Amino acid sequence: MKKEALHTLHGGDLDEISRIYGIDKNKILNFSGNVNPLGLPESVKKAIAENTDSAINYPDVAYVSLRDSIAAYTGADREHILVGNGSTELISLFIKTISPKKAVIISPAYSEYLREVEISGGTAELFPLSEDEGFMLSMDKLKAVITEETDLLVICNPNNPTGTYLTCDRIRDILMHCQSTDTYVMIDETYVEFSDKEISAIPLAKTFGNLFVVRGTSKFFACPGLRLGYGICSDSDILDRINERKDPWSVNIFAEIGGRVMFTDKAFIEDTIELISSERKRMYTELRKFENLFVYDTQSNFFLCKILNGKITSARIFEELIKDNILIRDASDFPYLGNRYLRFCILDKKSNTLLLNSLRKCLK
Amino acid sequence: MKKEALHTLHGGDLDEISRIYGIDKNKILNFSGNVNPLGLPESVKKAIAENTDSAINYPDVAYVSLRDSIAAYTGADREHILVGNGSTELISLFIKTISPKKAVIISPAYSEYLREVEISGGTAELFPLSEDEGFMLSMDKLKAVITEETDLLVICNPNNPTGTYLTCDRIRDILMHCQSTDTYVMIDETYVEFSDKEISAIPLAKTFGNLFVVRGTSKFFACPGLRLGYGICSDSDILDRINERKDPWSVNIFAEIGGRVMFTDKAFIEDTIELISSERKRMYTELRKFENLFVYDTQSNFFLCKILNGKITSARIFEELIKDNILIRDASDFPYLGNRYLRFCILDKKSNTLLLNSLRKCLK
Repeated sequence: MKKEALHTLHGGDLDEISRIYGIDKNKILNFSGNVNPLGLPESVKKAIAENTDSAINYPDVAYVSLRDSIAAYTGADREHILVGNGSTELISLFIKTISPKKAVIISPAYSEYLREVEISGGTAELFPLSEDEGFMLSMDKLKAVITEETDLLVICNPNNPTGTYLTCDRIRDILMHCQSTDTYVMIDETYVEFSDKEISAIPLAKTFGNLFVVRGTSKFFACPGLRLGYGICSDSDILDRINERKDPWSVNIFAEIGGRVMFTDKAFIEDTIELISSERKRMYTELRKFENLFVYDTQSNFFLCKILNGKITSARIFEELIKDNILIRDASDFPYLGNRYLRFCILDKKSNTLLLNSLRKCLK
Repeated sequence: MKKEALHTLHGGDLDEISRIYGIDKNKILNFSGNVNPLGLPESVKKAIAENTDSAINYPDVAYVSLRDSIAAYTGADREHILVGNGSTELISLFIKTISPKKAVIISPAYSEYLREVEISGGTAELFPLSEDEGFMLSMDKLKAVITEETDLLVICNPNNPTGTYLTCDRIRDILMHCQSTDTYVMIDETYVEFSDKEISAIPLAKTFGNLFVVRGTSKFFACPGLRLGYGICSDSDILDRINERKDPWSVNIFAEIGGRVMFTDKAFIEDTIELISSERKRMYTELRKFENLFVYDTQSNFFLCKILNGKITSARIFEELIKDNILIRDASDFPYLGNRYLRFCILDKKSNTLLLNSLRKCLK
């Protein structure tokens, strides 16, 4: 792999980063992965360690108990919940099931949505969040684009990498418009639990059959290795069609065990929200004081920033920070973002301070 | 679920059996699941318990180390190995990738092959292993059926539920014929490691690009909860096309950790082969002495038997045995098998003796 491409690597590719830059992988402060700095909940580790024997059983093919835990956690009906091998499997299954001829994807966004639409034989129009509008969604422009030709609209809320979000009122407005044009709406809520605000679309799923909400657990519960995601939809026809395609037991027994525990770990959930919320405020205040940098407000656990000094590229900042063992995401490969955008997530207070100090130094 | 359907339930549905028959799930002797009675290797349990922390990392998206372990275990090249969420994911991916218009499935067999061909929009012809020929494959008849119209041939070796097998010479013969008709051959080797004979097709994969060998770990390594399977193919075009469709990280981190350990656990592997081999001989000898029963020879860890008394159905034997907490598989729902067929696997010596005694009693 060329070193050039490394700045935009997924946060999961620590091994590769470690090899190329000759840094001990365990010493890297990973601001690129968007993972909860509290780490995997102790309750989950304990449940797995105490139940290694259970691998001799198949998981419950209907995942009743796991879906009950998710129902209690989200307020959705168990019958509306699907579980999958990470949100990835559910995104893939939903898109393959509805097989959209024409999709609209609000961008910049995760590249997987586009890939899945294309695998299904459809085409996707990227609907740009404009820099001039602070990456906020223009409802009028969006509605003009969603027509009866549009089979699917994909939204990430809060959006990655911009951190911007849609309120429930705006989501309802979009859903109503999409209902009138017979358009499905998939909302990826991977980062929604980090938000202070009540912006989840799950309560709307009971009313809007055209809505599919998808969530992962990798980021908030710090468990990308478990591969556990879930989807919520109230349209029984869609659920049946997804279940027909779905491989049985795609969620392994340790993901099932971990999932049953994590959603009830109130202390972990509260501690996370408290840490992220206070550090988000502190970092935002600090970042606004930086020379040569514009920081976008965020409802997620990461910040998008633009370098204002025309001579400094995001690649250069990446290279400078990695010298301090700090790994951030050069966001230049996202659609519509140029080579001046950085993304980094919120870790523990001490690490965040190290990042702020190193970044301040680089920007001077 | 109707009680009627329970006899033919998958061995994984112990919860359902336990509910309906009011038996403690842990007291059921499960002869229906075809799982290694030695249970999950201690080495795997230990590796998982000691590495619960690792769920905070994504699995290696290329699964290099896991594929190296499989390469060392099977003799295949790492570059020819794919890993998946159980053999199920790989069967599904391979069939979706080649998308056969017309497939031939040697039957009776696992119903998943047919389901996948149909999901892909193809049709499948079931090629019957004939009872009159002891469920042995007739090469001439098979070759007459495989024409240039045939895109895919599916074989399970040793076959489930018949226990019959194909030698390497016969497989080579089939592969050569299928090469001439431009037909892919998928061989499911879920049960091959239980055999005393060298019948795996893996050594042929280097020569035959039209071969896809798929294996699970659920049965031999007693870990259906882990969800780990692998596929072997030397055609780089097919591998690339599968990888394009494949969800990343479908093997979770504990399956990755377990997999790296199990394939090197020589003591477990040898103990398994020794136990199954000696119990297979002992049970076969005993079963041949039974009144009203014909037992088919097997190279797997299970037996297919036919009840010769016209008044006794497999459903009745199921009902009688479950009273002794013995769960067997009523094989009547497999294609071409009527309501006189039973399948049961080999467990530990003591349990096997209990089964033999109960079964002898029922057949009188």
